[in-house]
Amino acid sequence: MVAIGGISLPRFVAPSLHRQSFSPPAIGFARFPNRISYRSTVALLDEVEKTGSRAAIVNRKVDGLVKSDCETDFDATLGNGHARNSGKILGVLSTVGNSTNIKWHECSVGKIERQSLLEQKGCVIWITGLSGSGKSCVACALNQILYKMGKLAYILDGDNVRHGLNRDLGFKAEDRAENIKRIGEVAKLFAHAGVICIASLISPYRRDRDACRAILPDGYFIEVFMDVPLEVCEARDAKGLYKLARAGKIKGFTGIDDPYEVPLNCEIVLKNNGGSPCEMAEKVMSYLEQKGFLQA
Amino acid sequence: MVAIGGISLPRFVAPSLHRQSFSPPAIGFARFPNRISYRSTVALLDEVEKTGSRAAIVNRKVDGLVKSDCETDFDATLGNGHARNSGKILGVLSTVGNSTNIKWHECSVGKIERQSLLEQKGCVIWITGLSGSGKSCVACALNQILYKMGKLAYILDGDNVRHGLNRDLGFKAEDRAENIKRIGEVAKLFAHAGVICIASLISPYRRDRDACRAILPDGYFIEVFMDVPLEVCEARDAKGLYKLARAGKIKGFTGIDDPYEVPLNCEIVLKNNGGSPCEMAEKVMSYLEQKGFLQA
Repeated sequence: MVAIGGISLPRFVAPSLHRQSFSPPAIGFARFPNRISYRSTVALLDEVEKTGSRAAIVNRKVDGLVKSDCETDFDATLGNGHARNSGKILGVLSTVGNSTNIKWHECSVGKIERQSLLEQKGCVIWITGLSGSGKSCVACALNQILYKMGKLAYILDGDNVRHGLNRDLGFKAEDRAENIKRIGEVAKLFAHAGVICIASLISPYRRDRDACRAILPDGYFIEVFMDVPLEVCEARDAKGLYKLARAGKIKGFTGIDDPYEVPLNCEIVLKNNGGSPCEMAEKVMSYLEQKGFLQA
Repeated sequence: MVAIGGISLPRFVAPSLHRQSFSPPAIGFARFPNRISYRSTVALLDEVEKTGSRAAIVNRKVDGLVKSDCETDFDATLGNGHARNSGKILGVLSTVGNSTNIKWHECSVGKIERQSLLEQKGCVIWITGLSGSGKSCVACALNQILYKMGKLAYILDGDNVRHGLNRDLGFKAEDRAENIKRIGEVAKLFAHAGVICIASLISPYRRDRDACRAILPDGYFIEVFMDVPLEVCEARDAKGLYKLARAGKIKGFTGIDDPYEVPLNCEIVLKNNGGSPCEMAEKVMSYLEQKGFLQA
């Protein structure tokens, strides 16, 4: 255990994890000695076709497909309202934002099927807090625990996404909002894919976080607030950013000359004295278990 | 089997797939009767900490972590060059695009671990072709076959993403380029997460597709060209868009008054007379199997 700035950073990884020969623990997914090949799968699908089962897509129209509410709720938020609580009329052209001629395509393998495959429910765990509050450490610890359980998680880190998708964005107000909006949209796609998506970013404004919550079905956006006082974060200053901000070399730095709006109704609060990142991650795990996200 | 405009659209889905009670085929992931709970996992991690194993993150510096080339190649493209072929020096602040103060965060569960969990390699299958060339049908068939094999795939459909992430984009040249760029970046994140990501979009310009290829490690971008003549697509005109374009009601429509640039060196070409979407998807499956993507 390594103590830094008042919190303990755990040594997460057993060395074997970094060797290519590593075999994952047989607790989540099994290797079957006689896997069904894709050829027999195609034969199976051909059989399904021949026996005339219900078609998902026939002549680009859909035959009043009814899915579970859960699936439909998610699709409704993804599909901008084309999907309703029961029955779907697809194949409708629509105008969305700046786009016209957009058709919502439905596919026969949906969120429910992916959940069954992964034995988990995709969701977004949104970790918010000041720079230096320990977001990334908790995200990593959570990722590690989930992996050990055989669950598929993926971290969207605010900084990392700026290397790719959000490379064109800076730190002025509208760019920060756009950065968060895009990460929210990507997180939603991951959740829809069945992945437990851990978004770790300062996201200082309530309205931006709430906007990300709003695009997900109720309950699937889990806001985790790193409740660490500014003075603690500043004392850590692992990246040296607070020093630069105090010296006026970084403008608009959250907590110094830009506000951080504390969440009002978040799902989980992790206090400064809440233990190691592993222990904090355990609180999130407890929530996930209680809400049924760790099973299909 | 339903014949439309010269190709056959299969009836993909057995009815049971749409019932909430559906159990996935036991060919990919198994349900273990005595699952290891997250509590014992946390205890295991604590033990790892106490025994002083190699730390992934210690005081925000990394102890010369060496990963397999495969992982490192992917990280290098994701991490904008922070990760090199062997050994990593992290904890470096950088300037990326319009962003400063960006630090690349590394986590101990990486692509290799997720691959082991899923028993597959994440990649991007990029299906390009004219409107009406059957991209979505092949994407769906592929998704279905992969699901039946217990593999995790996710479709990023050009139209669907315009309902969310790319809602602010229209169809003028720079918006189309940005649309494709963002989908490419998201597809890369999915591939890094271990998912077989199927991107299905017209993507008419070679330079835009090549840019998406360039951000992925060699071999992980699999370009699939739907080689269907314009007249066949126009005869189908399932969305009625060609009619509108011919009437001048849609401007800049690919194939009518905007060019489609045929891929020069794509991995797979699916011809118009290549059979049903299932049969075409089988060709892609064959490629995936041959290249080792269907195993960890």
